[in-house]
Amino acid sequence: MRQSALFTRTERVAPADEPSVNARLLQQAGYVDKLAAGIYTYLPLGLSVLKAIQNIVREEMLALGAQEILMPALNPKEVWAATGRWQDPGPVVMYQFKGHGQTEYGLGWTHEEIVTPMVKRFLHSYRDLPFSVFQIQDKFRNEPRAKSGLLRGREFSMKDLYSFHRDAADLDAFYDRVMMAYRRVYERCGLQAVVTEASGGAFAKYSHEFQVVTPYGEDTIFLCTGCAYAQNREISQYHAGDACPKCGQAFVEAKAIEVGNIFKLGTRFSEAFHLSYLDEQGKASPVLMGCYGIGPSRVMGAIAEIHHDEHGLRWPASVAPFHLHVLRLGSDPAVMKRADAVVQALEKAGVSVLYDDRDKVTAGEKFHDADLIGIPWRAVVSAKTGEAVELKARGSDALEQLTVPALLKKIHLGNLKP
Amino acid sequence: MRQSALFTRTERVAPADEPSVNARLLQQAGYVDKLAAGIYTYLPLGLSVLKAIQNIVREEMLALGAQEILMPALNPKEVWAATGRWQDPGPVVMYQFKGHGQTEYGLGWTHEEIVTPMVKRFLHSYRDLPFSVFQIQDKFRNEPRAKSGLLRGREFSMKDLYSFHRDAADLDAFYDRVMMAYRRVYERCGLQAVVTEASGGAFAKYSHEFQVVTPYGEDTIFLCTGCAYAQNREISQYHAGDACPKCGQAFVEAKAIEVGNIFKLGTRFSEAFHLSYLDEQGKASPVLMGCYGIGPSRVMGAIAEIHHDEHGLRWPASVAPFHLHVLRLGSDPAVMKRADAVVQALEKAGVSVLYDDRDKVTAGEKFHDADLIGIPWRAVVSAKTGEAVELKARGSDALEQLTVPALLKKIHLGNLKP
Repeated sequence: MRQSALFTRTERVAPADEPSVNARLLQQAGYVDKLAAGIYTYLPLGLSVLKAIQNIVREEMLALGAQEILMPALNPKEVWAATGRWQDPGPVVMYQFKGHGQTEYGLGWTHEEIVTPMVKRFLHSYRDLPFSVFQIQDKFRNEPRAKSGLLRGREFSMKDLYSFHRDAADLDAFYDRVMMAYRRVYERCGLQAVVTEASGGAFAKYSHEFQVVTPYGEDTIFLCTGCAYAQNREISQYHAGDACPKCGQAFVEAKAIEVGNIFKLGTRFSEAFHLSYLDEQGKASPVLMGCYGIGPSRVMGAIAEIHHDEHGLRWPASVAPFHLHVLRLGSDPAVMKRADAVVQALEKAGVSVLYDDRDKVTAGEKFHDADLIGIPWRAVVSAKTGEAVELKARGSDALEQLTVPALLKKIHLGNLKP
Repeated sequence: MRQSALFTRTERVAPADEPSVNARLLQQAGYVDKLAAGIYTYLPLGLSVLKAIQNIVREEMLALGAQEILMPALNPKEVWAATGRWQDPGPVVMYQFKGHGQTEYGLGWTHEEIVTPMVKRFLHSYRDLPFSVFQIQDKFRNEPRAKSGLLRGREFSMKDLYSFHRDAADLDAFYDRVMMAYRRVYERCGLQAVVTEASGGAFAKYSHEFQVVTPYGEDTIFLCTGCAYAQNREISQYHAGDACPKCGQAFVEAKAIEVGNIFKLGTRFSEAFHLSYLDEQGKASPVLMGCYGIGPSRVMGAIAEIHHDEHGLRWPASVAPFHLHVLRLGSDPAVMKRADAVVQALEKAGVSVLYDDRDKVTAGEKFHDADLIGIPWRAVVSAKTGEAVELKARGSDALEQLTVPALLKKIHLGNLKP
């Protein structure tokens, strides 16, 4: 895409009203626009990153055999009253309001109340089990404070997966497979997520959170420096310095961002909605359920928190808005022609390119913008580069002169990864 | 996909509480699940159709050069108060409510109030014009009655495009290009949409609606039987039987479903938000805007209204959830093995297949389900078909015996279109 045609642009200074690193950088570089606290518009670059994350999550969910659906955000009161969550936590968490005819609605912040009665229509026998469904959908939370950019939105993108099982062994086996799938999601997104024990509710001793350690995290965990065993402080009986029960090394206290959680619901929701199955003998039993969440918008915020430096963002290639940022320096007709040809050759080869073809923008400003936007690789075409391009990885000082065929070969060999 | 693994199933009878054809068929065939009036979950088959429609719309918007963004549904009161629409139409159309700290929000039913101040951040000079942005996003309307299935949702999918121009000639030229793009969208979705003049507001004599004629439509139009010139009854000075001013043939009155509309906003919103640009002489003028809507969920409902018969749905190939429905009849091991091989060969060739591999389901039930689900082509593998498959188009009685290579050749030649 030609940068001259992109309707957004970077700003000289970061917004003054954003306390969080991710929101400051994403605003300044033109990825998002803040409408109100915790409420953002995704601009073209930002939507591209969000979709890349959503697609990674979707691929891993489909690989589990989960089936994609889309549930509504507008939820009638009745289904939430059935589990008691219309009142508790009620409006503390949920936006609630009335429509015509005094019908009461709330905006979904999770979807057990929707998915459980819905699957009841199709689930009758042990032969229908197990199965799982997921959606990638926008959720809402009545957040009292929303000062963390994409980490804590009042409206946010969420992938929620729900699984249905006949017994605890089957639920346990699927839960373990989801844990592996989640590990792959974070690895593919360039995040090191620590599996952390957290409150398990009535059905299991623990649930598990995926925590990314960073000084800007809102959560506090105790993390073993030896084996990475971790517990959320909220439930932990350990303290910093205590010996890890798994390996004997010391726990440290660390701030972290929760980027996902998995939870064994047991029969809590199947009992509330009378979701049962008939076994081989015709005996009815409540279905066991699990729920599993990853917030793609929060993952995007976490990546920005982790992958940046003093000059701007540094996207992992897997989620970057473009593969390559081509900078044309100067407006000499020969350079313009050569830069156009380079971009054409790259795009023909399937490489997605942001092409800084802007006139009346200095080389210094273009370098500055490229660092701020943070595409993994930068290729300069100028009077100096001759028939070659000057390739540089974001965050490195090493420059490499490459002909276009050599650049394409490097890309096709998979070597264009920072 | 194996139908035995699909968690949804068809139902023997259509739901009794759905007055509209689209909702009855889509529910019965397992495309959607009704949560409440005007509020639906998209099940795997339904989400597949919805995404196919959204992708057709997206492709045509990108072909116009429009840039994709995603704006929030949760809107603060302030921006809507700025145009007066917080009060009028206010809560008659918009769900409005308070969050913590008595902050007032509404759910977006259109996005002029969001897009206009947002682009102001980036739009300064005539050199920034023209450009256009679009989103595919879920909107909400406080509908007093929602009895038309996907045609009138309280929550619904909407593509909204907004364009920005320096003068009326530029807006007019873009408006005409959007009209052509919309024609392509409906044509690709298998809908014949009539361009219909409707109320134009302060800036233009007419806006234009795209109306699909059907007895179940909520709108009434006067349509010329000669040249297809049409006006919405709401603004028309004509009556049924009057002579068309374009060609002299007679107008007929027809019921129709509005599946899109395009509108010249002029300066209404740019004046409200002081969105102006500086021309070559440094003089500031308000930006001219256009807005252009297509509801993918409503388009899905309209396709169901138009493309069905007494046996069920009849999807156009472009939006069908699968290319081909393979039915395995009987559970003779040789037939099972052959059907598996057929499906494998098709999927390897990139054909998306719903594979009815269900045991304990009779041939009659499988034929019945295939007609109800409405995938354009059906291929039967049974003891009778030998090495061939028996191919039939949905809605036709003609059966064709084909070997798998011959079937693949037919598909690759693009001949698998009903």
